[in-house]
Amino acid sequence: MSNYKAPVTDLRFALHDVLKAESLFAAMGHADASADVIDAVLEEAGRFSASVLAPLNAAGDQHGCTLDKATGEVTTTPGFREAYAQFVEGGWTGLTAAPEFGGQGMPETLGMALSEMVSSANLAWSLFPMLSHGAVEALRHYGEDWQKEAFLKPLVAGTWTGTMCLTEPHAGTDLGLLKTRAEPNADGSYAITGTKIFITAGEHDLSENIVHLVLAKLPDAPPGPKGISLFVTPKYKVGRDGAMGERNALRCGALEHKMGIHGSSTCVMNFDGAQGYLVGQPHKGLQAMFVMMNSARLGVGIQGLAQSERAYQGALAYARERLQSRAPKGPQLADKPADPIIAQPDVRRMLLSIKALTEGGRLLAAHAYTQLDAAQSAGDAQVRADAETLVSFLTPIVKACLTEWSIESTYNAQQCFGGHGYIAEHGMEQLARDARITTLYEGTTGIQALDLIGRKTAMSQGAGLKLFLAEIEAFIAANAGNAAVAEFLPVLGARAREWGQLTSAVLQRAAANPEELGAASWDYLFYSGYVALAYWWARAVAAAQESTHPQAFRQAKLETARFYYARILPRTLAHAASIESGAEPLMAMDAARFGE
Amino acid sequence: MSNYKAPVTDLRFALHDVLKAESLFAAMGHADASADVIDAVLEEAGRFSASVLAPLNAAGDQHGCTLDKATGEVTTTPGFREAYAQFVEGGWTGLTAAPEFGGQGMPETLGMALSEMVSSANLAWSLFPMLSHGAVEALRHYGEDWQKEAFLKPLVAGTWTGTMCLTEPHAGTDLGLLKTRAEPNADGSYAITGTKIFITAGEHDLSENIVHLVLAKLPDAPPGPKGISLFVTPKYKVGRDGAMGERNALRCGALEHKMGIHGSSTCVMNFDGAQGYLVGQPHKGLQAMFVMMNSARLGVGIQGLAQSERAYQGALAYARERLQSRAPKGPQLADKPADPIIAQPDVRRMLLSIKALTEGGRLLAAHAYTQLDAAQSAGDAQVRADAETLVSFLTPIVKACLTEWSIESTYNAQQCFGGHGYIAEHGMEQLARDARITTLYEGTTGIQALDLIGRKTAMSQGAGLKLFLAEIEAFIAANAGNAAVAEFLPVLGARAREWGQLTSAVLQRAAANPEELGAASWDYLFYSGYVALAYWWARAVAAAQESTHPQAFRQAKLETARFYYARILPRTLAHAASIESGAEPLMAMDAARFGE
Repeated sequence: MSNYKAPVTDLRFALHDVLKAESLFAAMGHADASADVIDAVLEEAGRFSASVLAPLNAAGDQHGCTLDKATGEVTTTPGFREAYAQFVEGGWTGLTAAPEFGGQGMPETLGMALSEMVSSANLAWSLFPMLSHGAVEALRHYGEDWQKEAFLKPLVAGTWTGTMCLTEPHAGTDLGLLKTRAEPNADGSYAITGTKIFITAGEHDLSENIVHLVLAKLPDAPPGPKGISLFVTPKYKVGRDGAMGERNALRCGALEHKMGIHGSSTCVMNFDGAQGYLVGQPHKGLQAMFVMMNSARLGVGIQGLAQSERAYQGALAYARERLQSRAPKGPQLADKPADPIIAQPDVRRMLLSIKALTEGGRLLAAHAYTQLDAAQSAGDAQVRADAETLVSFLTPIVKACLTEWSIESTYNAQQCFGGHGYIAEHGMEQLARDARITTLYEGTTGIQALDLIGRKTAMSQGAGLKLFLAEIEAFIAANAGNAAVAEFLPVLGARAREWGQLTSAVLQRAAANPEELGAASWDYLFYSGYVALAYWWARAVAAAQESTHPQAFRQAKLETARFYYARILPRTLAHAASIESGAEPLMAMDAARFGE
Repeated sequence: MSNYKAPVTDLRFALHDVLKAESLFAAMGHADASADVIDAVLEEAGRFSASVLAPLNAAGDQHGCTLDKATGEVTTTPGFREAYAQFVEGGWTGLTAAPEFGGQGMPETLGMALSEMVSSANLAWSLFPMLSHGAVEALRHYGEDWQKEAFLKPLVAGTWTGTMCLTEPHAGTDLGLLKTRAEPNADGSYAITGTKIFITAGEHDLSENIVHLVLAKLPDAPPGPKGISLFVTPKYKVGRDGAMGERNALRCGALEHKMGIHGSSTCVMNFDGAQGYLVGQPHKGLQAMFVMMNSARLGVGIQGLAQSERAYQGALAYARERLQSRAPKGPQLADKPADPIIAQPDVRRMLLSIKALTEGGRLLAAHAYTQLDAAQSAGDAQVRADAETLVSFLTPIVKACLTEWSIESTYNAQQCFGGHGYIAEHGMEQLARDARITTLYEGTTGIQALDLIGRKTAMSQGAGLKLFLAEIEAFIAANAGNAAVAEFLPVLGARAREWGQLTSAVLQRAAANPEELGAASWDYLFYSGYVALAYWWARAVAAAQESTHPQAFRQAKLETARFYYARILPRTLAHAASIESGAEPLMAMDAARFGE
């Protein structure tokens, strides 16, 4: 039984009505991504997610994965293999991959819609195919021709899957500390030795081979992050002719016991002189890793969105059904013993918070993905460069805000259920536990916040922010006479100006004291996310009024936007005040005084 | 191995330096609660919690409870029975109970300190003795003399434990809907029939008997909450002579599968004509229930505080040990490969957030408990009445804010650990899952928020708020020349005035539209909590400066207060704006428009 319904209507609204996807894609040379094709993909991916993946979600949580210590093989939850086979059969693993490697060459924006639905239906399962995407990107950008031939086709086909092997026990955020070694072999390959932890889909029984992209140090590596190289290191050895050979010297040593995503195998991977091939230049592995990482970070943002969507569906259904107490204005269902709790203002606050952050977040993310597509495929070089700048700027916002909002949304959904939100039966507690990983992996929220204010703002003279603010200003100017959004534009304009001012003030302080960036980073991240969402809610209202959606749909967008501006956007007041207070309140206390 | 250290120093600071507990207690006739006795209790309770209970915390999570379906008996985690026997042996179950029933008659404020340490060490275990407290209170206030004799002594001694049987599948917040029936027997007792759910410690193997306080309806009960009566219904029948007899007709039908507190048995309890005795007047059960409930609500607030404290200890230890990246200003430990992450501003933001909310929350709660003690024991009738008004007002703030802050604090602790926060090994994920129940049971945060703004403010013409604001104003006046707190007083004064103004404005709007109360409730709750904490942080600084604690301790209080005012208190800006936006943004949307 599935209790997930793919939000195809809202995805269509985002892609067609707000982002004008068909013409956008056509301008990038994606003429095959017509409105009809988009709709067909949404419908079919939604059907698959709801009917095949969603019913396995609770089972994955209860059953988890099991490791055979004798062989190092991992068995997944019953049904996961079969679902993956259907996923491969349906061609979903290659949706956005290049046709030359067997992919369908669809825009990444459409891949995002697929990811959202798959992750909503079954986050743990979704991680098995998801990691392949980063491996494909790294090999496509940096692999030698034979590596592309040998690895990309089976990865795109889905018969093989990929992993990212970065973290070690003592090296997480700071990968420069890693100890895994790569010794040259006589045949041009390398012997990889070391231990990697937290390896998602590091071992499992869904695919014929598993392609590990491993960061390691060559014997002559300079210390720190500039001494890291990338190696492709498959579970079964792969020759230069692409033929799969004998078992490689690597194996899963343990599965982590986690708070959630139990259906996903999170592995300790031991490499014991495993045969690997260098990908890209020696000591330039971090560059390739960032290619994988950026793709993965946007993807994790979508996972957050996906958990929020499912939380909303669960909470809304319960709030409409659960009869408890009377509405403040008096009985709504006089013939029943009580009214549905959706009549209660505070239950509405929780539901509308989820709805506003989820539907708004969907636009924020979809826009970032259109920039990713434009950065790769737009005809004009300046358009490509600007799109690259913009998506780089938006990536930490999408990753961190959408995942943090999923924590808030799954939290609110549990609260709507009361005590029933704490027990397994209704699925809300699993959503909360599963969502909880998203603010941790692929860089914590704190790391995203530093990336946004440091690399993506301070180090690039605010180029990304300038582009985004220009887009907001253009929207405000274009809608100066639009009564539908007149109530929102003055507030949006004021916040956008304040965003620029806060940024300048922080960068100025940071010039004198480098601690100012880190001290402002978390509040700056959320400030940015909330103003970005104010923009997208104004655009949603404008697009809804021009659309052919039913009046109730258009009205709901307007009411949700009003809720957002009245009840969520004021959080920027707190974040701005906190940013303005500077680094001193954080840095004054000596480490010894924090406690005994 | 225990990784919990009882915060005896900070508890002593709260009780002695801030609240002047010894003289406060003496004025209430608790001359036996001298400073030495207080210190001895803190030390010994801390030792017991850290050495006996804390080492069982992870085991309780992994092992949980098991139900023998054939007998209905529940077996707890190995070690829980022995720990409980030691707790009973040490006399801890009777610490605050009346001497006439075998208790030690200590102030409830000291009981709070015990509860905090026990709950920090092992929340799941703490629920077995905790529920007895409410049963004792209900019987003490409303029980017949023979009931007090028969039930109170073993409950106080701890050889029996108690439960509160309120919730039914269709009746949670709205207890007026409950269906459990009580039919009169010939001997003056009643036959109780019905199903109760979410019964904490409903069945277990720690005590000789389990005393269920059950809400049920008499045959002639008027409909709704005015038709509810309370019955004492033990697992083993108890005669009017206090003798324990045969097994009563009630049993545990199932254990809930929960997100956390696995070591605690959360039971479905089936009553099948079980023998019970009416407690108090027919149809007046809700009154007695509120006595149990208010005690339980403050207690749950302490559970939140307790989880925050333990989260802080874990996160601080990790942040000092974990070497990763360099401090923004350059290497702190040049001879190591990286610096401890406590050098990072955003890690400090997380640690200081936990510290400020936890230490401030401890004062907020301890003050509420002193009012509880004064309401019971102060010599002057007006003092008792005011204390009763004040503790009633503070109860929803303590319950809701301290538990919500525990969600934030356990969240932040996980973030400090990065990916390691998601795996079981370090214990942080268990803390987050365990803490998660505290905002749900004994009334969700939304219910507390309604209680605060409705019953405790609107229905009492703001009497509680007036008393609390008068206390704040008196503190400000008394410290007008105190340089130690000069930086805080203008802000505190402004927020306190705004608190009064916001309250008046909401009550005025609510007179015209009853939805305004519910619409403002959640933001009003947090607004109140943050201003209350601003008061306690100012008082903490004043008390620290006058104390004999080491300079580092006094300095840390000042720095944490500055952090609180700079980085947390600004949240009131968002809450105030949200309150002022009124009910319309929540109520405009028709239930049908929330989604498909």
